[in-house]
Amino acid sequence: MGARELAEKDLFARHCGITLVHAGKGQATAKMEIQPHHLNGVGIVQGGALFTLADMALATASNAYDVVAVGLTSSITYFKAESSGILFAKATELSLRRTVATYQVKVTNEQDELIAVFQGTVYRKNPK
Amino acid sequence: MGARELAEKDLFARHCGITLVHAGKGQATAKMEIQPHHLNGVGIVQGGALFTLADMALATASNAYDVVAVGLTSSITYFKAESSGILFAKATELSLRRTVATYQVKVTNEQDELIAVFQGTVYRKNPK
Amino acid sequence: MGARELAEKDLFARHCGITLVHAGKGQATAKMEIQPHHLNGVGIVQGGALFTLADMALATASNAYDVVAVGLTSSITYFKAESSGILFAKATELSLRRTVATYQVKVTNEQDELIAVFQGTVYRKNPK
Amino acid sequence: MGARELAEKDLFARHCGITLVHAGKGQATAKMEIQPHHLNGVGIVQGGALFTLADMALATASNAYDVVAVGLTSSITYFKAESSGILFAKATELSLRRTVATYQVKVTNEQDELIAVFQGTVYRKNPK
Repeated sequence: MGARELAEKDLFARHCGITLVHAGKGQATAKMEIQPHHLNGVGIVQGGALFTLADMALATASNAYDVVAVGLTSSITYFKAESSGILFAKATELSLRRTVATYQVKVTNEQDELIAVFQGTVYRKNPK
Repeated sequence: MGARELAEKDLFARHCGITLVHAGKGQATAKMEIQPHHLNGVGIVQGGALFTLADMALATASNAYDVVAVGLTSSITYFKAESSGILFAKATELSLRRTVATYQVKVTNEQDELIAVFQGTVYRKNPK
Repeated sequence: MGARELAEKDLFARHCGITLVHAGKGQATAKMEIQPHHLNGVGIVQGGALFTLADMALATASNAYDVVAVGLTSSITYFKAESSGILFAKATELSLRRTVATYQVKVTNEQDELIAVFQGTVYRKNPK
Repeated sequence: MGARELAEKDLFARHCGITLVHAGKGQATAKMEIQPHHLNGVGIVQGGALFTLADMALATASNAYDVVAVGLTSSITYFKAESSGILFAKATELSLRRTVATYQVKVTNEQDELIAVFQGTVYRKNPK
């Protein structure tokens, strides 16, 4: 199963309205148009929605090889609150080793302002 | 607006089927019954769903005081994959200072096994 | 080579004046008496000194088994600035799996106040 | 007190043999020539030494403005083990807000290979 197929079968990403824009070796871009159901109690996009958007980019980028990659640990740092428009998450590879790989994901808005930075490290299982 | 009210107005948490079990000063417990729409492409709960569950506990615990707390940075580390049952997220306060506070959130299953650990630091805005 | 022996051969920890108080399976305690050379430009213990103290506890706790554990990623969150006295770092195991393990380390002062919290995930190499 | 002066008064950085290469607004580069006392029990540069090198770049970059910046939280992810040569840490600004700022620091060797990635968030105190 390829990275794109994995992304299409990701029911939670679909539930959150997240779609794939681009998928390549060790890189991917996902997007999410902000809807009322993405907002938290103070009317801005919930941290979990931003995280899920970034995580979708991470999963796609890290599963572009011949192995299944599963998340070990991820972090997100928030810079700017948004409540409307389209958000993009672009994953790039910081390091790829046999069993572990690390990606940075930048979340930006339509004006290309940095909304959040996410970093994730995955464990790469043996090739099937 | 109190922490419980903030939680009830969190549309994204509601969209994810997350509810509040307990809310106190600097502590909170949230829960989520795993549904098919919480799963990722390999059939386990998506990292973003676990993060959102933990983030709901963080938001509730950190907004239990006289100030609005917004997320600065959070991390999550995954220990065990789940695909059914009920998950709980319990937030406890590690540190509370005037403008910054930090919480640990443990995500467990019905057998009280540790599924993930989350840590979040919030910025506390001036009292309204 | 056991965990205690690894700790004794850690030249950087020795250079920093860090010593082992206790070593067990998946747990360890290290200590450091604050000296002028641990301070930064504003006269408080440098973040790197706190990190190194915590990292020593992590390395000892995670190498208590039959495999060599090397750091993948670690984070530290600072709660209180110190400039004198003795600091302790106590590592406990959050998760132990075949190839990956995660530890929390609490750094406290002589009054048992929480100075910082550290979390580290290690990769466990094949048994020698 | 400027960022460069703060760096020069950092006794722990000096104790670790770390020096400043460049200091600018929101950016800085530090370096460290690996010595035997930087190594851990398995003969590679200790995580705490890499962290301290990166932290020095963070502190210098974040104190380049009219306010004192103190660390809130930092993380480091290790990619490659080193045991000799010179290491460089280059900090760049991801976000600068009134009271909080975030920096990424890349640690590289003389061949410009990525050894580790560090990210730090600081709290900016009121101008003196």
